[in-house]
Amino acid sequence: MSELIEKAAKAKAAASQLSSKTTLQKNEALKTIADQLTNEMAYILRENEKDIDAAKEKGIGQSLIDRLMLNEGRIVEMAEALIQLTALPDPIGDTLESWERPNGLAIQKVRVPLGVVGMIYEARPNVTVDASSLCLKTGNAVLLRGSSSALHSNQALVNVIHRALEGTELPADAVQLLEDVSRETASDMFRLNDYLDVLIPRGGKRLIQTVVQNASVPVLETGAGNCHIFIDQSAKPGMAAEITVNAKTQRPSVCNAAEKLIVHEAWAKRHLAELAVKLRDHHVELRGDERATAFVPDLIPADGDDWETEYLDKILAIKVVANVHEAVRHINRYGTKHSEAILTESEESVSAFFQTVDAAVLYHNASTRFTDGFEFGFGAEIGISTQKLHARGPMGLPALTSTKYTVCGEGQIKGV
Amino acid sequence: MSELIEKAAKAKAAASQLSSKTTLQKNEALKTIADQLTNEMAYILRENEKDIDAAKEKGIGQSLIDRLMLNEGRIVEMAEALIQLTALPDPIGDTLESWERPNGLAIQKVRVPLGVVGMIYEARPNVTVDASSLCLKTGNAVLLRGSSSALHSNQALVNVIHRALEGTELPADAVQLLEDVSRETASDMFRLNDYLDVLIPRGGKRLIQTVVQNASVPVLETGAGNCHIFIDQSAKPGMAAEITVNAKTQRPSVCNAAEKLIVHEAWAKRHLAELAVKLRDHHVELRGDERATAFVPDLIPADGDDWETEYLDKILAIKVVANVHEAVRHINRYGTKHSEAILTESEESVSAFFQTVDAAVLYHNASTRFTDGFEFGFGAEIGISTQKLHARGPMGLPALTSTKYTVCGEGQIKGV
Repeated sequence: MSELIEKAAKAKAAASQLSSKTTLQKNEALKTIADQLTNEMAYILRENEKDIDAAKEKGIGQSLIDRLMLNEGRIVEMAEALIQLTALPDPIGDTLESWERPNGLAIQKVRVPLGVVGMIYEARPNVTVDASSLCLKTGNAVLLRGSSSALHSNQALVNVIHRALEGTELPADAVQLLEDVSRETASDMFRLNDYLDVLIPRGGKRLIQTVVQNASVPVLETGAGNCHIFIDQSAKPGMAAEITVNAKTQRPSVCNAAEKLIVHEAWAKRHLAELAVKLRDHHVELRGDERATAFVPDLIPADGDDWETEYLDKILAIKVVANVHEAVRHINRYGTKHSEAILTESEESVSAFFQTVDAAVLYHNASTRFTDGFEFGFGAEIGISTQKLHARGPMGLPALTSTKYTVCGEGQIKGV
Repeated sequence: MSELIEKAAKAKAAASQLSSKTTLQKNEALKTIADQLTNEMAYILRENEKDIDAAKEKGIGQSLIDRLMLNEGRIVEMAEALIQLTALPDPIGDTLESWERPNGLAIQKVRVPLGVVGMIYEARPNVTVDASSLCLKTGNAVLLRGSSSALHSNQALVNVIHRALEGTELPADAVQLLEDVSRETASDMFRLNDYLDVLIPRGGKRLIQTVVQNASVPVLETGAGNCHIFIDQSAKPGMAAEITVNAKTQRPSVCNAAEKLIVHEAWAKRHLAELAVKLRDHHVELRGDERATAFVPDLIPADGDDWETEYLDKILAIKVVANVHEAVRHINRYGTKHSEAILTESEESVSAFFQTVDAAVLYHNASTRFTDGFEFGFGAEIGISTQKLHARGPMGLPALTSTKYTVCGEGQIKGV
């Protein structure tokens, strides 16, 4: 039996035990893992160093090494996140709906774990602990497939999790790490419908698209954000500038940062030049269409590619439009259905924008940067879904659950 | 441009218009389609006859011809179903949750259409009208891909729908039928992520598995039902017999019919022989494992294949077990996660069964035949989902919807 099938089968067996564990048992396990992480810090750092050394030897870039690297602070953060998770409500077992049918059948819809979650991710060892703990809290088993460059770190972390779980009521088999990190194993994992209930890719666009394009197991897609801010005719100039600067520059490398600015022509005439100065003061490179060029000097011409690109950098492309409808058409054509904002004092414009823009999160007079499980108050975040099935937008713990119906009768049978 | 892309693009454009249509506008359109179906009955039947003639010429079997055939009664039924649909609540626009964050942001989660639904189905022309009307009611556009053997009928029905929609506020482009029914077009449709938000296969196991295995567009899987009835030690013999006979024989060809009977050995000793007589009186062929053979004469030995097979026929395989846990293990190993029943007077057994059986619908003392959108009181049925993401069990109108978040602020920006 291959390592993949063996570990998937173990995870599946563990999942069926996990489904009946209590909140208390799950929280105790999370606390035990937190303690074990702190106690075995030296071991984890030693193993992590092997990955770092290998990466340096291969001449891997500093930003990747930064993502790979663990230190005392980062391990303490992991342990703290585990403790925070114990404080969150456990969604499993919640009765979502209940009703009685005229024939006396009593129907309940209750929240249950998904079963086995397949997690495919890049070289961030913290995802190993993060994904495991979110899955355990929601009664799921997890099959982890990390990057080869983080293998020593991931093995150490999973060893620590296993040693912790052995002293708890939860089966240690609930967390499985694939040590064969070949492409073939990943491809086999994409089609493991008999063992996996869902696949969650975490990483760059390319990884996610590979999984979406090749998996027969259902995928939770967390996607790119080509986010727009539309400044309508009646937008307050001060607020518009503050929000645009914040959404673009506060953290340009993340998916909820603004990438495009759409401006009503009447507003552009009066205020766009001034806003451009502010953005440039924040070192933002400005690009734009022809109409925008009339208001902003030295604008780099934006071409078709610009409208589709998620820069993840201090670059902003500006388009001037005649009205909210032209803005909506542009956003629906080029957006990635992530987060889109309208800045306006007109209720009519808000209503048109909210009703017709097709995206996970729509903002009125606020920065797109709030699209985040913690900012939404979920206390945890699985990712931000840009698909429309199952979960959309920031995903909290309920995104890792399913439901089942229970139907209680007194001998009811179906008539003609 | 291929027919597929052209029609998918039209459907997508129509979807963005549909999202802001009112319940009244949608219901008026459904009523107009109902009228048009009745008015153009002669035309529809004439076109349907072409399909029937071609099928007969090809020597196609009677059961397929029955499914293909339309008649006055079936068209009246379609029209009536459309009118019934107008009476159902429109889920679109419902506010599912709303809360305010400490920073003053007001968040709402609202129900929205999915967008464009791709429907792939076999030779039942009624699915053309059924799928179109369910999609229109929920503000979705639909791209239909039916069977070549029903092409004339499907074209006639979609022509009628188009003529009806032209007199309404809904775009006629919302319903698109592919006339190129080649395998290649179907395969292209599986990967049309830029246009389709979901694919729904309706038909046999093979069609569904082809779509699940090959689609990169998210799939709503409606699956097979290898459903079990477990008769526990304390089950009432009369009730157990009534439910078992009903679940097996009332309509053996459907997915919620029982296929397997698991019996507690103590109950088997006292009552299984008598139950076997009753089942045979209903012309049920009985198979069974060795332990069952001890109680029932002339049982056909059941092999490994039997436990996995959805007979869809008057065949029932019987297994005798030591307790509820052995029953659950068997069901979780061989079941298709559809509908599973326990017949018992023991609350403890019910609780163990409900907590550990992994299936969409679990029954206590009732027939599995109730797994159905209408029996659940949903007023409509998209199908019965056996997957765990998005929707599980009987799917009503909300299964054809997604959500979006709207976030209203007064200039909020994200701090550090």
